[in-house]
Amino acid sequence: MKIVGVLGGMGPLATVDLLNKIIKYTDAKKDSDHIHTLVDNNTEIPDRTAYILKEGKDPVDYLIDSALKLEAMGASFIVMPCNTAHYFYEKICKSIKIPFINMIDEVAKELNDVKKVGLLSTKGTYKGKIYENILNKYGIEVAIPPIEMQEIVNKLIYSLKEGDENLDKIPIKDVLDYFSNLGIEKIILGCTELPVTFEKLKIEGTFIDPTKILALSAIKHSGKNLKNFNSQ
Amino acid sequence: MKIVGVLGGMGPLATVDLLNKIIKYTDAKKDSDHIHTLVDNNTEIPDRTAYILKEGKDPVDYLIDSALKLEAMGASFIVMPCNTAHYFYEKICKSIKIPFINMIDEVAKELNDVKKVGLLSTKGTYKGKIYENILNKYGIEVAIPPIEMQEIVNKLIYSLKEGDENLDKIPIKDVLDYFSNLGIEKIILGCTELPVTFEKLKIEGTFIDPTKILALSAIKHSGKNLKNFNSQ
Repeated sequence: MKIVGVLGGMGPLATVDLLNKIIKYTDAKKDSDHIHTLVDNNTEIPDRTAYILKEGKDPVDYLIDSALKLEAMGASFIVMPCNTAHYFYEKICKSIKIPFINMIDEVAKELNDVKKVGLLSTKGTYKGKIYENILNKYGIEVAIPPIEMQEIVNKLIYSLKEGDENLDKIPIKDVLDYFSNLGIEKIILGCTELPVTFEKLKIEGTFIDPTKILALSAIKHSGKNLKNFNSQ
Repeated sequence: MKIVGVLGGMGPLATVDLLNKIIKYTDAKKDSDHIHTLVDNNTEIPDRTAYILKEGKDPVDYLIDSALKLEAMGASFIVMPCNTAHYFYEKICKSIKIPFINMIDEVAKELNDVKKVGLLSTKGTYKGKIYENILNKYGIEVAIPPIEMQEIVNKLIYSLKEGDENLDKIPIKDVLDYFSNLGIEKIILGCTELPVTFEKLKIEGTFIDPTKILALSAIKHSGKNLKNFNSQ
């Protein structure tokens, strides 16, 4: 059985969200039908946004160490449920021999016929142009909200990380309205804390969930079958 | 930072439930306040109940391999979110140098002033007397339901593992009524799939959740603080 190595901890709730989605979308009738995952839920990795904004420690060595550890322990390939950490994707790849699925690239591949997409993410992902760098190659334009709205998104993300129970007080709907008023129908929840948060807040809309896309990709790469929800 | 090694995959939903509970009960304001966990979500471990009932392959070597892997990866101590797998606890301990928190023992320590407790578990946990062997030493009597009711509990557990969406059709309330009619007020959800199932089914009652107890113990052993819900 292929073993999926999860380079996680960024944050732990986002890592658990990926694991849950892998379980949910795998066609399985018993434990041994499910994917064997090895998870480094490495909460010691320095904040990725802080580094990109030149305010914090470089996380790259921690990321490489985690990837090497997963490889040494038998992972067949790596997945990393953190959008901002994909800033360091190339350096991590150079350090390991096993494949490393790029979540941003997997998102791009799912955006058939989409010319323009909205992006909600950390300030690090915005600053690092992590989505533009890949999506532009596919001919997809990425719409970024203005700075004051980026602050709202950032606040929502870090409030979830803090365990804040008052997420509903953060005016994320203003940012969704901003995109809506521009006629942008699809929005990428481009920080792995966001699908968790939107589910907590029961926010509905046409959102692209990179965590779910990564889960589906991990299932396919592991050789397992996707669950067929239509047959239930 | 101490690293918690999670010997999981039995099943994957139960493993995710432990990870969620560790996150939920840790006092944390950012990712790096959370516990660094290493998880072997090893779904390849043969069914524990099948072996105990002499119907399946011995899982012990798989369990020992996973424990050794976590130790080699840097785990400071091991936790195992599977009640039935504690049947193999001694053999696993002999194979590793790091500490291994015994979930059943942690449950016993929480049962202050309780003389008799009901148990819901797999047929393997019942047959292996996994709870009696430890709780009796603490002077606690374990009440086991009759065979036909053990079948209902087993059905509920394996239906969750199967991803069955019709868990509400399984008459688990008959088993709860059985204990209630005997005047037994506290019931151990002695299979790590059960807290997940009871939450899905929104079943309320005075249940002892070994997964939660193990999470709290892992937090304390890791040197982190428990979240204070009263201050919110």
